[in-house]
Amino acid sequence: MIGGKLEKNNNLEKLAKLVRYFILVSTTKAGSGHPSSSLSAVELMTDLLFGGFFKFNINDPSYINNDRLVFSKGHASPLLYSLWAAAGVITEEEILTLRKFGSRLEGHPTPVFPYTEASTGSLGQGLSIGVGISLNAKYIDKLPYKTYVLLGDSEMTEGSQWEAIQIAEYYKLDNLICILDVNRLGQRGQTMYGWDIEAYEKRISSFGWETVTIDGHDFKEISSAYRHALQVKGKPTMIIAKTIKGKGVSSIENKDGWHGKALPADKLDEALADIGDIDKNITKSIAEPDKCDASSGEIKDYDVTAINTDSMSTRKAYGIALVNIFKKFPDIVVLDAEVSNSTYAEIFKEKFPDRYFEMYIAEQNMIGTALGLASRGKIPFVSTFAAFLTRAFDQIRMSGYSNTNIKFVGSHAGVSIGEDGPSQMGLEDIAMFRAQLNSVVIYPSDAISTEKLVEKAAAHYGNVYIRTTRMDTPVIYDSSEDFEIGGSKTLRVSENDKATVCAAGITLHEALKAYDELKKENISIRVIDVYSVKPVDREAIAKAQEETGAIITVEDHFAEGGLGEAVKSVASEKSPVYMLAVRKIPRSGKPYELLDFEEISSKAIIGKVKEILAK
Amino acid sequence: MIGGKLEKNNNLEKLAKLVRYFILVSTTKAGSGHPSSSLSAVELMTDLLFGGFFKFNINDPSYINNDRLVFSKGHASPLLYSLWAAAGVITEEEILTLRKFGSRLEGHPTPVFPYTEASTGSLGQGLSIGVGISLNAKYIDKLPYKTYVLLGDSEMTEGSQWEAIQIAEYYKLDNLICILDVNRLGQRGQTMYGWDIEAYEKRISSFGWETVTIDGHDFKEISSAYRHALQVKGKPTMIIAKTIKGKGVSSIENKDGWHGKALPADKLDEALADIGDIDKNITKSIAEPDKCDASSGEIKDYDVTAINTDSMSTRKAYGIALVNIFKKFPDIVVLDAEVSNSTYAEIFKEKFPDRYFEMYIAEQNMIGTALGLASRGKIPFVSTFAAFLTRAFDQIRMSGYSNTNIKFVGSHAGVSIGEDGPSQMGLEDIAMFRAQLNSVVIYPSDAISTEKLVEKAAAHYGNVYIRTTRMDTPVIYDSSEDFEIGGSKTLRVSENDKATVCAAGITLHEALKAYDELKKENISIRVIDVYSVKPVDREAIAKAQEETGAIITVEDHFAEGGLGEAVKSVASEKSPVYMLAVRKIPRSGKPYELLDFEEISSKAIIGKVKEILAK
Repeated sequence: MIGGKLEKNNNLEKLAKLVRYFILVSTTKAGSGHPSSSLSAVELMTDLLFGGFFKFNINDPSYINNDRLVFSKGHASPLLYSLWAAAGVITEEEILTLRKFGSRLEGHPTPVFPYTEASTGSLGQGLSIGVGISLNAKYIDKLPYKTYVLLGDSEMTEGSQWEAIQIAEYYKLDNLICILDVNRLGQRGQTMYGWDIEAYEKRISSFGWETVTIDGHDFKEISSAYRHALQVKGKPTMIIAKTIKGKGVSSIENKDGWHGKALPADKLDEALADIGDIDKNITKSIAEPDKCDASSGEIKDYDVTAINTDSMSTRKAYGIALVNIFKKFPDIVVLDAEVSNSTYAEIFKEKFPDRYFEMYIAEQNMIGTALGLASRGKIPFVSTFAAFLTRAFDQIRMSGYSNTNIKFVGSHAGVSIGEDGPSQMGLEDIAMFRAQLNSVVIYPSDAISTEKLVEKAAAHYGNVYIRTTRMDTPVIYDSSEDFEIGGSKTLRVSENDKATVCAAGITLHEALKAYDELKKENISIRVIDVYSVKPVDREAIAKAQEETGAIITVEDHFAEGGLGEAVKSVASEKSPVYMLAVRKIPRSGKPYELLDFEEISSKAIIGKVKEILAK
Repeated sequence: MIGGKLEKNNNLEKLAKLVRYFILVSTTKAGSGHPSSSLSAVELMTDLLFGGFFKFNINDPSYINNDRLVFSKGHASPLLYSLWAAAGVITEEEILTLRKFGSRLEGHPTPVFPYTEASTGSLGQGLSIGVGISLNAKYIDKLPYKTYVLLGDSEMTEGSQWEAIQIAEYYKLDNLICILDVNRLGQRGQTMYGWDIEAYEKRISSFGWETVTIDGHDFKEISSAYRHALQVKGKPTMIIAKTIKGKGVSSIENKDGWHGKALPADKLDEALADIGDIDKNITKSIAEPDKCDASSGEIKDYDVTAINTDSMSTRKAYGIALVNIFKKFPDIVVLDAEVSNSTYAEIFKEKFPDRYFEMYIAEQNMIGTALGLASRGKIPFVSTFAAFLTRAFDQIRMSGYSNTNIKFVGSHAGVSIGEDGPSQMGLEDIAMFRAQLNSVVIYPSDAISTEKLVEKAAAHYGNVYIRTTRMDTPVIYDSSEDFEIGGSKTLRVSENDKATVCAAGITLHEALKAYDELKKENISIRVIDVYSVKPVDREAIAKAQEETGAIITVEDHFAEGGLGEAVKSVASEKSPVYMLAVRKIPRSGKPYELLDFEEISSKAIIGKVKEILAK
């Protein structure tokens, strides 16, 4: 039997005191932080970690069969650190570095502290991450580890939670156990449902989850809930715990105005007195996980599909590429938000259905799930329309702080999608993905470069965005061509070039058309395929500025944050940079009507070149 | 009695045939579009509009007491247009322009067609818009009009729906009636719950909504559901209708593979034969709304709070400004996502609680609600941490296509927030808001300019983003100073300036410190407050380039898409532009430690100036 014994409970109570002690001294020393939000979940987490439920090799935090604990309420980081201090992996000296520059113990958890699963602190993201970690255990690695997620009550108003709740039931994630810390108070007052734990139970159970309601400060009830959750089959469990914010410190218990505030130094002694004697030498141990092997992930050899065609959409080439590279990258997992027949993720799904997860129209959860999968060593490729990736910008942003490895694929980029109109046009996706530290942004123009760059993306550790185009485009590269992240291709060059056009994706073909037209008039231009929008090929641009003077960028994207600004950001003052981009509200219409309307077609390029020559 | 009579039903059946006819001929003529998704909701919408329920002055679509109909499933636009064709406001000639360049009838509805409430087509947004329109009726204008929202089943997996569902119950929106068209099939196959309408009922009713399940093709059941919904008090209603995708056209009814596809011309006749004889001269009329006056919105005079202090955070000045300008802009409504004590929206809330709506931690729904309020003539100011506005990028993006008027306010911008760490730091918000057509981005540096610019934002019709800073900053402007959208302030200038520093917000103060330090060494620099990041003051930058040579931009934001690229995008090749920005993953730490770490402090500016001088 695990947990629940009287002796163990006595120990747990002592451990809870020690955890509270660490929470209080560390936050008071830091002068900021969230002690009250940490104190409400002390019993819930102490019982989980030290009651025999949580199985984790503390000397090997990355061990494949460790249970996983995601702090979705990331502001309770003092609790997270205090638990690991109680477990002995953080010294008392270190816990006093909380929130100091250079400390592993940041204000909200980040993977700088290796017992953190993912950066949290933007609320409503941890449950999706837990879904990804659980999916990995149940369907990919086929390991018995459990995933625990500590949730705050305030964050339950985030829609992303309900996306995750739906998907967790859909995939029958009985290895996912969530703990909802209903401490009633949000940042500025009572939450929507206050202490009405039945309101949570009704809603969550309506989505097919197992629910248990408990007093979150009663070890007997807590242990019983964990024991129950570990036996539930076929569905995830939510333990809904009524708790008291600030529990254990009488001056702040259940009081408004104490969110995100450390106790001042002169109140610390009184608070510590409330907690009572602590025993720093108490025996505490976290249970060991069973030794297991992950499912091998080996795949039978299969034939790849060579792209030998005159014309193909880059989105279709993406689907083919996924299949072709899977044998080389068996950690690939493919997710799509109910548009796999448009993004062509379905080509992979049809060939490897076990490695494809339908995420339905819930982009936030899709990205969170991908982050969870990546945290377990997978290489998730997630796709939807480029426009709809904006739905998950907060998750994308946060993933950048998790040192993760997600490949984002946005199809239907730009006005060139045509009749469906602006709601479906990705026109800000490059800006979004560029504005992330260390991100890579790839925008291929033909099927061959797409295939090559999808492979480069898989091989590159880190977040990569690949932008694909709806319509078929001519294949312009030979299959022997190499492409590098950070590279470019100078496709037209002569000693007599009057200007350089930098383009990528659909507009590259417009640039090539403009080249042909201008050639007839004996005007030479240089054409560069800037397929790597970030990092952008600074040298090629410098060379072109040196040799041809003016640069013209042309992109099927808004003018702000896109290809033009990427090029101009590295351009020197040697020559001017002119930016052709989408600057008018797009309408429904035929693709080429819209390229003309937005002045990003060959016609606009020719006009700009002639304008420059006339100067 | 309204609706439901046998004679009326006969008429409704004839009208439904006419609507189906318009759907089919218009999409086949367009060669694309979503007839199958339109056909499933024909009876639901025909009964609503022509069964006596929907009250609308068709000659005055903006009339204040018109009922409102939001097509959340925007891809059913052929149905929307066909209904209005049946109502006589679109001719048969016009409906055949569907999806053609220049037509009012775009692929997904936009306000170019005046019977559209908002641009839809990115799923899961219409319900939030409906919440805003209903809030307006119930709490602000106090008008009896009803708001109807047509929802698709696929989009119910979007978390934003559940955000809206929660808030609609919280605000007891009994004037909100939603119709869920459960046609079972999504874009690429069956939805998560298929035809299990009980699954929807269980989940939605658990959130306190009234629910009615019906056969969505049976006029008797439909009429009865509307009659019931109109009598429900104290809560919103969801009519959950089981329908058949493609209903009425036997070759596509309930068949996979017909999402988003027009019938080819050679199949049209067969489809029209399925529908049977139509009567284009059938009598059809939409009921008239009652004549009403809106609540006046007049407010008693009150004293404004002058900002007379040496130092104040711009976020606090924002709260004060809202109160100060409310008498001049009585259409202001303030929304916040549970952080009003951090954004200082609470200053307004305390003074005018009736015009403040707590939106809890659900940013997507907050923006959708704001759009609904704006569509009814209000000026919504919505605030949260800048970082968390990313949560609603898709709603922000879509709002740009609705010709709307929302003021977005993001507090806690940049690494200068300090210890809370990167999850709470807005570092991509400028990139996000710049990458929107016709948007305005304002980043004030002190309390006075904040107050002035909040007023300018209110007076400017269109989307405006205001970025505020957590920490107190010195007041540097006199209260008599004027600020314009598109303007800037050259704060330090001499004939001897060796370079120009362009900064805004927190870094402006660093630039002023650098000026003072360099002055001691007899080095003069120009300092420009680029408080209007978009549109940016091109003339001031040109003048500075001309007169001082090098430009240095410095910003507490990532390098991509921010102030630096905004400045460089308009800079000429006359002189180089150097960009100081956040380029390393931020940590927890003290604000000034982090400004130094990221090399955006006065120290970094001084270093860059000296580097330029050494060249």
